[in-house]
Amino acid sequence: MRYLLTIRYIGTAYHGWQVQENALAIQPIIQDALQEMFPHRPGVTGCSRTDSGVHANMYCCHFDSPLERDPFGIICSVNRNLPNDIAATHCRVVDEEFHARYSVTAKEYVYRIYNGVHRDPFAHQLAYHYRFPLHHEAMHQAAQHFVGTYDFSSFCANNAKPGDRTRQVFAASVERDGDYVVFRVSANGFLYNMVRIMVGTLLRVSEGKFTPDQIPEIIAARCRDRAGPTAPPQGLYLNQVFYEEV
Amino acid sequence: MRYLLTIRYIGTAYHGWQVQENALAIQPIIQDALQEMFPHRPGVTGCSRTDSGVHANMYCCHFDSPLERDPFGIICSVNRNLPNDIAATHCRVVDEEFHARYSVTAKEYVYRIYNGVHRDPFAHQLAYHYRFPLHHEAMHQAAQHFVGTYDFSSFCANNAKPGDRTRQVFAASVERDGDYVVFRVSANGFLYNMVRIMVGTLLRVSEGKFTPDQIPEIIAARCRDRAGPTAPPQGLYLNQVFYEEV
Repeated sequence: MRYLLTIRYIGTAYHGWQVQENALAIQPIIQDALQEMFPHRPGVTGCSRTDSGVHANMYCCHFDSPLERDPFGIICSVNRNLPNDIAATHCRVVDEEFHARYSVTAKEYVYRIYNGVHRDPFAHQLAYHYRFPLHHEAMHQAAQHFVGTYDFSSFCANNAKPGDRTRQVFAASVERDGDYVVFRVSANGFLYNMVRIMVGTLLRVSEGKFTPDQIPEIIAARCRDRAGPTAPPQGLYLNQVFYEEV
Repeated sequence: MRYLLTIRYIGTAYHGWQVQENALAIQPIIQDALQEMFPHRPGVTGCSRTDSGVHANMYCCHFDSPLERDPFGIICSVNRNLPNDIAATHCRVVDEEFHARYSVTAKEYVYRIYNGVHRDPFAHQLAYHYRFPLHHEAMHQAAQHFVGTYDFSSFCANNAKPGDRTRQVFAASVERDGDYVVFRVSANGFLYNMVRIMVGTLLRVSEGKFTPDQIPEIIAARCRDRAGPTAPPQGLYLNQVFYEEV
């Protein structure tokens, strides 16, 4: 049977989800933590790759096992065996057709900018510290131009794999919450570094280097060099993963 | 001249504010961090002792120096020299009469309980994980009985120094915020472990071991054994410090 396991993690200590040589990744840690209940150590398939230092409020993965186990018991067992910066939050049995990556219909990312003048210890590695005043209304206005179906090549890292770069962005917003400015974006899929390049571009808008109305031409150029820089990883959170009914 | 310096810190790594033998404390770290601008290494006086593992959203201290320095520059210099889990947020020159501890008119503490069933990596060491359903309305009702001027001996650690244990509690509340239950209390002063014993007692109310209406008799008993246990330190935050106009 196939199990869907949902986890949360602070990504600071990890080189993303995927097993890599000579780098600590989250995937093998989940596999190890499952061994108490699934001694055959099933392989785990994640919903997406994530970058070094990126966090997840919700990350989904699936694994197969002939063993029938109580989902609540799986969560408890996995949590006993995970380090403090990773935890399982949900588990359920899914159809064999379900796939943690290919069944995704939408994902939502959040990017947290700590916009205080001085350092905040509680924001360390959990937000990007940008100390100059942010014009969040202009950033929000600019973000509205991301909504729609476009070739987002301008918002894709140059070293990404080739392929179709058309994605549908469902919603995008920038809101201030005290000393924090939060960018929220949902889409049917994301290109490599897409959210971080969007944030780098919105920061350029705040700085007056782009106007909000220039976003459509930056998208239309389909050229990475036209967009802003890639914002650092520590502000980024995979926030929600949506699946078709399974 | 006398400077008032406001800091924030994650207390996990520290044995509280005060210098202690063979234990890492926050006070000497602040003194070291001031040395770049104040090479005479002034002694720093804090607004209160804090326990091991307790955090501060706002903690105030003062120091004296013959040197006249720009407060903004002091913050920047101190932050360059502090570890990531401590940061300076405000600084100003105050009257020589001002005292970080004796001029306090009120303090507010917050106690954060993470009330999800499973672990949350983002709450690790930053909240107390209590996994059973909390009756926050009953806890709030009970907390109202703390408001007033009472001898709070029942809410004071047995090993505290002798002295007058009358304190005036100005406000107390328990609110739910998603998976968190937050206790907030302000008073003209706090006894040793007072907030943590209040929280331990409110948890007993949630568990049905005390009714909210029993709080007045627990206070009146002036006996530590009548109150609930001392809640663990990681949920506690010194949140605000109030001073008379200086």
